[in-house]
Amino acid sequence: MSYYERHVFFCTNDRGEGAERPSCNRCGSQAARDHAKQRVKSLGLAGEGKVRINSAGCLDRCEEGPVCVVYPEGVWYTYVDTEDVDEIIDSHVVGGKPVERLKI
Amino acid sequence: MSYYERHVFFCTNDRGEGAERPSCNRCGSQAARDHAKQRVKSLGLAGEGKVRINSAGCLDRCEEGPVCVVYPEGVWYTYVDTEDVDEIIDSHVVGGKPVERLKI
Repeated sequence: MSYYERHVFFCTNDRGEGAERPSCNRCGSQAARDHAKQRVKSLGLAGEGKVRINSAGCLDRCEEGPVCVVYPEGVWYTYVDTEDVDEIIDSHVVGGKPVERLKI
Repeated sequence: MSYYERHVFFCTNDRGEGAERPSCNRCGSQAARDHAKQRVKSLGLAGEGKVRINSAGCLDRCEEGPVCVVYPEGVWYTYVDTEDVDEIIDSHVVGGKPVERLKI
C-alpha cells in the first residue's frame, strides 16, 4: 500500500476575473477542499496509512471544473456544493465506492 | 485507464524562513517541478492519456523532503538535483520502472 490509502487532490487554481479559460477556484474549490479536509479530520481519517486531502495547481480539466481526483484509483469528479463533496468523501474516499453521478 | 497515464505531484509548499518544520520549496521544489514539466513537454508526453506534472500543497512528508509522488502507482520520491528529477521522469514516468535509490 502507498503512504496514503487514498490521496485526493482538489484543483485550487485561480486565473482571476475575466480570464479566457475558467478556473476551479472561481467556482469555490478552495472552500470545497477546506471542507473536505475538515470532514476527513473530524472522522479521524487523516494521516499516514489513511487519507490525505490536498490542494493542487491546475489539473488541466478547467472546462469540466471545479474538479478533484482520487488516487490511487484515478477517479475524477466535479461537484457543485458541500453535499457533493461529502458524498465523494463518504462514499468513495471512506467507503471505496465511487460516486457515479459526479464522475467526469 | 485514468485521464492521465501518470500524474506526478511535486510538493511546492513554502513555510518561509525559520519555520519549525522544513518545507519542500525551501529545498528548490518549485524549480524541480518546473524542470520536470518542461522535460515532459519537450518529450511530447504532456496531456490527456499521457503525463501531467503538477504542483501541490503540503504532502505532509516534510522531514523527508523535497518530495514528489507518482500516481497511480503511489510511489514517493525525494530528489537533490535536476539529474534526480530527470531519472524519475525518464525511468519511472516514461519507462514505468521506479527509481529505487530515490524512493522514500
